[in-house]
Amino acid sequence: MNSNTPKTPLTIVKIGGNIIDNPVELAHFLTDFATIKGQKIIVHGGGKSATKLAQSMGLVPQMVEGRRITDAAMLDVVVGVYAGQINKNIVAQLQAQNTNAIGFSGADGNTILSEKRNHPTIDFGFVGDVVKVNTQLLNTLITNNITPVFCAITHNGKGQLLNTNADTIAAELAIALSEIYEVTLTYCFEKPGVLLNAEDDHSVIESINASLYQSLKNQKTIHSGMIPKLDNCFHCLSKGVKSIKIGHHHMLHHPNNKHTTIAL
Amino acid sequence: MNSNTPKTPLTIVKIGGNIIDNPVELAHFLTDFATIKGQKIIVHGGGKSATKLAQSMGLVPQMVEGRRITDAAMLDVVVGVYAGQINKNIVAQLQAQNTNAIGFSGADGNTILSEKRNHPTIDFGFVGDVVKVNTQLLNTLITNNITPVFCAITHNGKGQLLNTNADTIAAELAIALSEIYEVTLTYCFEKPGVLLNAEDDHSVIESINASLYQSLKNQKTIHSGMIPKLDNCFHCLSKGVKSIKIGHHHMLHHPNNKHTTIAL
Repeated sequence: MNSNTPKTPLTIVKIGGNIIDNPVELAHFLTDFATIKGQKIIVHGGGKSATKLAQSMGLVPQMVEGRRITDAAMLDVVVGVYAGQINKNIVAQLQAQNTNAIGFSGADGNTILSEKRNHPTIDFGFVGDVVKVNTQLLNTLITNNITPVFCAITHNGKGQLLNTNADTIAAELAIALSEIYEVTLTYCFEKPGVLLNAEDDHSVIESINASLYQSLKNQKTIHSGMIPKLDNCFHCLSKGVKSIKIGHHHMLHHPNNKHTTIAL
Repeated sequence: MNSNTPKTPLTIVKIGGNIIDNPVELAHFLTDFATIKGQKIIVHGGGKSATKLAQSMGLVPQMVEGRRITDAAMLDVVVGVYAGQINKNIVAQLQAQNTNAIGFSGADGNTILSEKRNHPTIDFGFVGDVVKVNTQLLNTLITNNITPVFCAITHNGKGQLLNTNADTIAAELAIALSEIYEVTLTYCFEKPGVLLNAEDDHSVIESINASLYQSLKNQKTIHSGMIPKLDNCFHCLSKGVKSIKIGHHHMLHHPNNKHTTIAL
């Protein structure tokens, strides 16, 4: 592409368990999402259904140092729930909203290659870390006004499916597609944005750039779990993603609703 | 397309439970399938995994007059197993064979619309009968040398997924794609073909046309379960499908292996 040609906007929206576990909330989200103009992608996490299904089958979650292990039986469950139940229900509901969607795992179209996590002391099982995103097929679909819907399953190119973090999938898709598109990456969660005070939903920080982020970290206003999330956001921005929004999904339909925008 | 331009060949292969339930057999099938030259599609049934999973969850299969009823809980199970576990494993294994595959339910890309079965006395639950196949996206993918892999799930366009017969999906895809392609529809099963004597695997009828079919029916050589299957084959041929093959999947890699070819 000629560097003077403006890139086409693309919105990538990641949703998590708080939306997926609640059918009413999911329907609201999908209605909001369908109103986004232009080209778009959904990435969805898993929610609690996989854990519930595993328990109903008598599987016992394997945790090591607070982290979930994905053994072969658990992988079968998460592939069924994420790539099957959740993904196909989202796709069918989007079709009913006249949004032509198509479900994806990273194996489909070889879109996301990953490798089994190699940790010095913990065997996480069938957990994958993203190695490469292939954008050619996605670009063909997006250009044809089709909306890819990604679940958090990838593959290693050798026939093995791997459970993969949905936030990471959203970030890696955003980075790879930034070569072609002007990408806005949107993380929807239960809060209206990044908060100055975690107890006060009215304390949304509306805009964060690199220097504000550094001073908020120095003041310890931003701490613990938010730091890796925001580090990841600035990593995306450094790799070409145009901007990142964090907030409640209502902002998709009501852009004046308060939310946090992160840009360089 | 100019009617004088020869159509591009397309092979549609349907596999059933005997292949899907056996990981070794499935791997052999996929190796054979990957050797098919040119453009191709897989349609897969469900096998026994959905029933096993339902049982492990304590669900009791609902049967009415010998037919399985798909209630909401069973639909969740079949969507997870067919569109998730089986479909994504097939796609990942094809990627490992350098066949760029992409998984589909009928909801994906709005490729197969169906309607909930309306029976005068039996409520089959969430079971769909195919109404329409949209070929545009499939044609785009096939033209880009991508292999669609269909599970036996469709949607009604109003957000509802529906359990749908895999043989029918294969037939409807074959008919719809015959407008663009010269389609060979291949049904793989555990026998080497249609048999003159059901007890003798060496009694394969190598070629059946409409008049031979009529006389085999009159002689009652072909009877019971084979009649609706073959009626369906002749229906496909009357709607433009070029030929239909029935036999063991080894014929995909070894076309000289005995099998049954059905043509007008």
